[in-house]
Amino acid sequence: MPLPARLLDASLLLIGRASPAIVWDVLPLSELNLIERIRRFARRSPALRVGIGDDCAVLRLPAGHETLVTTDFSLEGTHFRRDWHPPESVGHRCLARGLSDIAAMGGDPVAAFLSLALPADIDQRWVDSFLRGLLDLAVKNKVVLAGGDLAQSPGGVCADIMLLGSAPRGKALLRSGARPGDVLYVTGQLGVSAMVLHALRDGQSVSPKSKQAAPHFWPQPRIAIGRALRGLATAAIDISDGLSTDLTHICRESGVGALVREYSIPREVSFQGSSLHFALHGGEDYELLFTAPAKARVPESVGGVRITSIGEIVRDPKHRIFLTDSHGQRKLVTPAGWQHFTSSE
Amino acid sequence: MPLPARLLDASLLLIGRASPAIVWDVLPLSELNLIERIRRFARRSPALRVGIGDDCAVLRLPAGHETLVTTDFSLEGTHFRRDWHPPESVGHRCLARGLSDIAAMGGDPVAAFLSLALPADIDQRWVDSFLRGLLDLAVKNKVVLAGGDLAQSPGGVCADIMLLGSAPRGKALLRSGARPGDVLYVTGQLGVSAMVLHALRDGQSVSPKSKQAAPHFWPQPRIAIGRALRGLATAAIDISDGLSTDLTHICRESGVGALVREYSIPREVSFQGSSLHFALHGGEDYELLFTAPAKARVPESVGGVRITSIGEIVRDPKHRIFLTDSHGQRKLVTPAGWQHFTSSE
Repeated sequence: MPLPARLLDASLLLIGRASPAIVWDVLPLSELNLIERIRRFARRSPALRVGIGDDCAVLRLPAGHETLVTTDFSLEGTHFRRDWHPPESVGHRCLARGLSDIAAMGGDPVAAFLSLALPADIDQRWVDSFLRGLLDLAVKNKVVLAGGDLAQSPGGVCADIMLLGSAPRGKALLRSGARPGDVLYVTGQLGVSAMVLHALRDGQSVSPKSKQAAPHFWPQPRIAIGRALRGLATAAIDISDGLSTDLTHICRESGVGALVREYSIPREVSFQGSSLHFALHGGEDYELLFTAPAKARVPESVGGVRITSIGEIVRDPKHRIFLTDSHGQRKLVTPAGWQHFTSSE
Repeated sequence: MPLPARLLDASLLLIGRASPAIVWDVLPLSELNLIERIRRFARRSPALRVGIGDDCAVLRLPAGHETLVTTDFSLEGTHFRRDWHPPESVGHRCLARGLSDIAAMGGDPVAAFLSLALPADIDQRWVDSFLRGLLDLAVKNKVVLAGGDLAQSPGGVCADIMLLGSAPRGKALLRSGARPGDVLYVTGQLGVSAMVLHALRDGQSVSPKSKQAAPHFWPQPRIAIGRALRGLATAAIDISDGLSTDLTHICRESGVGALVREYSIPREVSFQGSSLHFALHGGEDYELLFTAPAKARVPESVGGVRITSIGEIVRDPKHRIFLTDSHGQRKLVTPAGWQHFTSSE
């Protein structure tokens, strides 16, 4: 069997052709360098006892730790478009989605598993670049690609990323621990990713290399911040569906309400009128939203990423969110969710 | 947010419509019973500290154990066809694929995570029945459905199952431990699943309820046998791609060759001439293939499933497999792989 057999799993090579007469075939992975890189990097992980090449991966997690698991789809047409997103960005974003969930639990990422279904006619260079984008972020976050599955997709590219992480026993940050009086914080800046998507939808050309568009094409999961918040934050979530929706998750799981100061939300103001809308309801920021007691010593920044207080948790059996403006006026916020690739106005 | 929000994950409700203008919508899960059943069952798992409703599931694995992870696609047109396989069978087979990998490691299944992409026009009853088939097998094997993701598929049904299991430290059965002189064993009977697929392809009608067709529609992962083999077997694998292919994996990973006695392979003889072919090269048996020292006390059966000695491991740097017939004639076996939904003749 050729070397690619070991890429992720024996089954990873087997690509099915379109039904009803499907022929399994070997994925013509041209870049052996890439495979060697996956394997070399995998060998360096002390947690991975058995990786690619057996029925299961075998992992040894630190004693006294709990296991964190999250899975996230990255589907063509839903989460990305091949004409908008370069393959490196698709791979990066695919892994970033999972890593961001680990960050939101205050966890340490351990291993990633990639299930990838590809259209029969896809360019091998697209696959190589996708994997390169994913692996660059994996190396940066010290997470090993430990397995997965590969198949042919009857539709577009369908990737499913599974992240395994660990957190000291009982220390994982949940959505359910926010208490009235807690201060509400957010990392980084909100709304830029949604702004970029809005521009793309509008037919505008946005360079994936531009610094301004980086939060959309190259979101940075806040692993270091999540880790720093262990024992400090009372509740945490990552902002994947937009501040209004994700804050609602915290409020519902914790049985509380929230007041958010409109003028405190860190956002890109160059978009004038819409910036508040994108910051409140835009998705895919992958910043952390968390709560901590008023007395807690929350750092002003971690690794150069700013942490901003944007409001407070209040008693409210209806789990409502209110926005206060600079005149002290309160306005009820309806969670608007995140509507992929549609006008969010 | 309606109750289904908790089915697997907040994101599980969000179903995207076809690109380019995708609207997220709420999955109209009609059967609240099913959801309640998932949640009730999840609450009974001592390993699951935090399940559906947070960024990650939090699991507490037994001390001194290692973590096993496997992921497997079940794609429409590749692994099943909606006109051939009832939804309960698709759900059952989806989970069985993952459980069988845990069995092959001698592991205990702990939790399953399901990522499911569905076509926009799918009948809700299909989804309910799919989940019912999956959950019935989950309950039977004491594995909890602890999370996942749901999205709209631009093509057919696309399911990705991730199984998390555990095995006492250092005790997981690998593919790499077979030694010359070891006896080669197989559980159950081989080839029936491939025979049924052959019949379906032939346009024959096969009832999913018939006892004879059960190994295809309702394969039983050999969890109890895998567990019984810990400390007994030197190498193990599950037969998903066919005996010839999966034995080749053991031989390559262990650096050995194998002799298989043609007349010892347990198979359905009613198919006369083809039964050897299906038993050797047919896939999706989900039986275990393992090796043990000649002196090891391998039971004749576990839980009513027969264990049969079919040959032995030999020294061979070329990792070849030879078949010996009743006259002592040797014939080289070429691993034929498993060709889904194509003529395997």
